[in-house]
Amino acid sequence: MAAAPARQVSLDCITFLSDYGLSDEFVAVCKGVIRRIAPGMDVLDISHSIEPFDLRHASGVLARAVAYMPTAVHLAIVDPTVGSARRPVIVQSRDGSVFVGPDNGLLTAAAGVRGGPKGAWHISNPHLVSPEASGTFHGRDVFAPAAAHVAVGRAPEEFGDEIPPETLERLPEPLVVDHGDHMHGEVVDVDRFGNAQLSIRAESLAVALQVRPGASLDARVCAQGFQVPWYDHFSAVEVGDRLLVTDSSGHAALAINQGSFAGASGVKVGDRVVLGLPGRQPYDCSL
Amino acid sequence: MAAAPARQVSLDCITFLSDYGLSDEFVAVCKGVIRRIAPGMDVLDISHSIEPFDLRHASGVLARAVAYMPTAVHLAIVDPTVGSARRPVIVQSRDGSVFVGPDNGLLTAAAGVRGGPKGAWHISNPHLVSPEASGTFHGRDVFAPAAAHVAVGRAPEEFGDEIPPETLERLPEPLVVDHGDHMHGEVVDVDRFGNAQLSIRAESLAVALQVRPGASLDARVCAQGFQVPWYDHFSAVEVGDRLLVTDSSGHAALAINQGSFAGASGVKVGDRVVLGLPGRQPYDCSL
Amino acid sequence: MAAAPARQVSLDCITFLSDYGLSDEFVAVCKGVIRRIAPGMDVLDISHSIEPFDLRHASGVLARAVAYMPTAVHLAIVDPTVGSARRPVIVQSRDGSVFVGPDNGLLTAAAGVRGGPKGAWHISNPHLVSPEASGTFHGRDVFAPAAAHVAVGRAPEEFGDEIPPETLERLPEPLVVDHGDHMHGEVVDVDRFGNAQLSIRAESLAVALQVRPGASLDARVCAQGFQVPWYDHFSAVEVGDRLLVTDSSGHAALAINQGSFAGASGVKVGDRVVLGLPGRQPYDCSL
Repeated sequence: MAAAPARQVSLDCITFLSDYGLSDEFVAVCKGVIRRIAPGMDVLDISHSIEPFDLRHASGVLARAVAYMPTAVHLAIVDPTVGSARRPVIVQSRDGSVFVGPDNGLLTAAAGVRGGPKGAWHISNPHLVSPEASGTFHGRDVFAPAAAHVAVGRAPEEFGDEIPPETLERLPEPLVVDHGDHMHGEVVDVDRFGNAQLSIRAESLAVALQVRPGASLDARVCAQGFQVPWYDHFSAVEVGDRLLVTDSSGHAALAINQGSFAGASGVKVGDRVVLGLPGRQPYDCSL
Repeated sequence: MAAAPARQVSLDCITFLSDYGLSDEFVAVCKGVIRRIAPGMDVLDISHSIEPFDLRHASGVLARAVAYMPTAVHLAIVDPTVGSARRPVIVQSRDGSVFVGPDNGLLTAAAGVRGGPKGAWHISNPHLVSPEASGTFHGRDVFAPAAAHVAVGRAPEEFGDEIPPETLERLPEPLVVDHGDHMHGEVVDVDRFGNAQLSIRAESLAVALQVRPGASLDARVCAQGFQVPWYDHFSAVEVGDRLLVTDSSGHAALAINQGSFAGASGVKVGDRVVLGLPGRQPYDCSL
Repeated sequence: MAAAPARQVSLDCITFLSDYGLSDEFVAVCKGVIRRIAPGMDVLDISHSIEPFDLRHASGVLARAVAYMPTAVHLAIVDPTVGSARRPVIVQSRDGSVFVGPDNGLLTAAAGVRGGPKGAWHISNPHLVSPEASGTFHGRDVFAPAAAHVAVGRAPEEFGDEIPPETLERLPEPLVVDHGDHMHGEVVDVDRFGNAQLSIRAESLAVALQVRPGASLDARVCAQGFQVPWYDHFSAVEVGDRLLVTDSSGHAALAINQGSFAGASGVKVGDRVVLGLPGRQPYDCSL
């Protein structure tokens, strides 16, 4: 086997995200596989409690997490079509980070956060994955071995044919439309606390509506309309009151101070939202 | 920047407790921040599955966990009033352990377990936290950076003004009253198995009622009254039967052998409990 | 204390499985105990989200996980009769792996995966466990200390009397019967995704019924009967359709592509299953 090309960037650890859950052996099996190939390499869990097959939440969690990581190998597995023709891939971003997972849109936002994809490869070298891969557990048989081999110095080029990065799958972009006195968006994520992150970034809101934190806005989420003040921390309003908050990733989010906005309102990912200046005509969520 | 004062005690690792849950990126983001400041420092998770904002359970979990830890930095974040005027603090205990978190009562019991607070500081040095802290995620922007800087040798004094330890917030003490032939207490914790830990310590019970394990007691939890035998292990009674057990932290706990007392009885944290000698007048839970 | 005998196999890490859950301090306490005895030894979590007392699922998870681990100490605690006369044990398998836990059937399948038990010992040396063990938390007081001492070089012989391995407790073997044109089995595990793993191995099915992946079979789970095609990956059928899949451990499993078979059908562990050639008399689940 050819010597691995010299690496420019040292890789700090392997981060690991999946929808495998914590009540079965799947995560531990992948970690055992990694330990045998890359002894001494730390594995940092991002999350394994992604709802089964929820690519959208997983993609957001991964992107928001890798933004704060050292340069690392990022192993990410949410793989509803495991065993089909979807490609297992390695994506290297411009900062030297390496992403390993299925080519189904999971990796692209995260690679974007680290400078965008510089190269991509189709994992197919039978010497670097399990030679008799199962059809149901590519985490164990393909992705964890590939991530571990990269972590100990294998170059992405050794894993298979190069893929033009622009052919990598992408998830649909969420809706954001600026209508002058109001903006349309959608709920892109609901976190553990019930905060509903919107596709609308706080700074876009400030520019579009010419408002600043402290302003009051009209909000409409499907059938529900209400006024919310916009602040940068929850406790600017009374406990139990609604607000629009600039969240830690810079998005506008609908929230309740010390409560769950999603729990109280029933909103879910994908629901349409309108934010607008108060006192105008009622905004129409359908457009 | 001034050189850090010599440290007397070496800090073994950073332990980490939060109510961030495991389905979002919050925990991983904090760990990424730590890895960049303190590479090679181990992070030992205590729990991230504290119910949102449940300071009381979190405080107990933290105190019971740190009792068995090496001398370490303890990062603990349950922070319902993040972004408000509540202080971010570093508390050093007499054994050299360091606690980092919000000053809302979360840290005090744990610091007490490690000898009590020797000093406390208000985290405010902009060079040692994120210079543009968000108003919603001080775990990422304030607490994780502070914990990591302490772990690599920064002295607590460098983070900001000293605070008199006696001004640190404390959670209310749970009720325990000795009435001679019976004791009033309350449920202070319910664990995963449904065991209801009481505010009454087993040794206090032995002294107050002059009873020993093996004795039978009258128990009253709100509207429910029953007799329970007191033992030091669950299987002293038949599977499915109730008992009072001396739990692993030395408290009396109401339990069912291989079952869930909380599930069967509906008790919850804060419920009043009476334990008394059998055959007396029914004890009144309200006092 | 006598010097530890020379070890032949170096132990890579301590893996850890329990039903302690992640919302209390139990797991962290055990890890704190380990760190104080075996500083620098990695702990690799297998799962702590086993349902309380679910020895059967735990035994399967442990066995399937250790198959992919380096030679290690495996600490496993699901202990419904903690504090009773059940023995705390150390089991060494032929490959040099060491298993530490209660003698209640939890460890045997896993030891079998690593070559079978070569020796077993009753943990009783008061110098190597907590001298005042509680009656409710042997993870902290007995098992974690023992695992840590083994990891740093103590020989199993130092912990107590040797036990004949054939006297170790075993869980009941699941039902598998070959009736020529059909096989009886049972559901042995349900994973996070709702896949129902059967006691029937895929290769046994192929031999017994003379069928190969791609074939269609009659399946009967209690009152429900249906035809399922047999494939080696989920997406061989349409999204939402049922299939029989060869799972990653080589068992036949009932599944729904991108759905939950257990959720849709209500099957649970222990339910009887029949797989047979199509077009015969309806098979009887009761035999």
